[in-house]
Amino acid sequence: MKIGVVLFPSKQVQDFANSYRKRYDTKYALISPHVTIKERTEIDEADLPKVLEYLQQVADSTKPVQLKIDGVRSFAPTNNVLYLKVLPTRELSALHDKLHDGLLKQPPKYEFLPHITIGQDLTDAELFDVLERMRMEQVHFEETINRMAVMYELENETWNVYETFRFRG
Amino acid sequence: MKIGVVLFPSKQVQDFANSYRKRYDTKYALISPHVTIKERTEIDEADLPKVLEYLQQVADSTKPVQLKIDGVRSFAPTNNVLYLKVLPTRELSALHDKLHDGLLKQPPKYEFLPHITIGQDLTDAELFDVLERMRMEQVHFEETINRMAVMYELENETWNVYETFRFRG
Repeated sequence: MKIGVVLFPSKQVQDFANSYRKRYDTKYALISPHVTIKERTEIDEADLPKVLEYLQQVADSTKPVQLKIDGVRSFAPTNNVLYLKVLPTRELSALHDKLHDGLLKQPPKYEFLPHITIGQDLTDAELFDVLERMRMEQVHFEETINRMAVMYELENETWNVYETFRFRG
Repeated sequence: MKIGVVLFPSKQVQDFANSYRKRYDTKYALISPHVTIKERTEIDEADLPKVLEYLQQVADSTKPVQLKIDGVRSFAPTNNVLYLKVLPTRELSALHDKLHDGLLKQPPKYEFLPHITIGQDLTDAELFDVLERMRMEQVHFEETINRMAVMYELENETWNVYETFRFRG
């Protein structure tokens, strides 16, 4: 089965992100707005209990994390993705590292640049147009995130939450 | 904010339900297949921590529940909804009762008939046609559910998981 680990921002930020995703994100219907901490990973379903136990241990030793969202950026020209920039703090990096270590040891596929995707599969013209307009908006949010969610992918490519873990460090 | 409490069946059952929902359920994209234990309820966001604490207590005193799915039924003519019938066990009723008591005290809107919706807003002809075909299939699943999920509704009417609670009774 395919799993991943994410942080969900507040409802307010999710609603804000969805107002763009609805128009600009081809994956809008498949998952709610999120910060990916561990990318899609294939695990044997029999290993799930052990994985959940490991995630519980990580959460038990992690303090609630600050999520600071500051502006809109793009991965273009590498990738025509539009995203809300999340400041890469030491806390977020430490969490990312723990989720690529121990039982979940795995070299990360990408450099860790925390973000909330709000557009993808855009043409160059669309991307440029949206970025220009959004540069004029003040996009700032700051909030405390108290839990992480382990997600799994269904056959229809939607992602559902399997379990959440509170940060109790 | 609007919350609800649900049980998610296994990925296998969700994939099975979605194979019908894709065609027959107008709310297919808004939530994954589920058994509703507490219907959409408006709460003050400031009360959320207390509500979560109450749900934690309920989960702490509830044993994992058996989910027995047996056949396809419809609420027609009251409501052109098609669903997987979930056997109404004492355990499920007890959980439903606890979620309509204490801090969440509220008369239930409907009699509790546990089910997994796979079609809604169908015409009479569609409903009859699908029911006839599904009566020939053997639809039986039995599994143990270890957690419940508290959901909240976003502005785009999708439902996301806020937190899950393991049954530890």
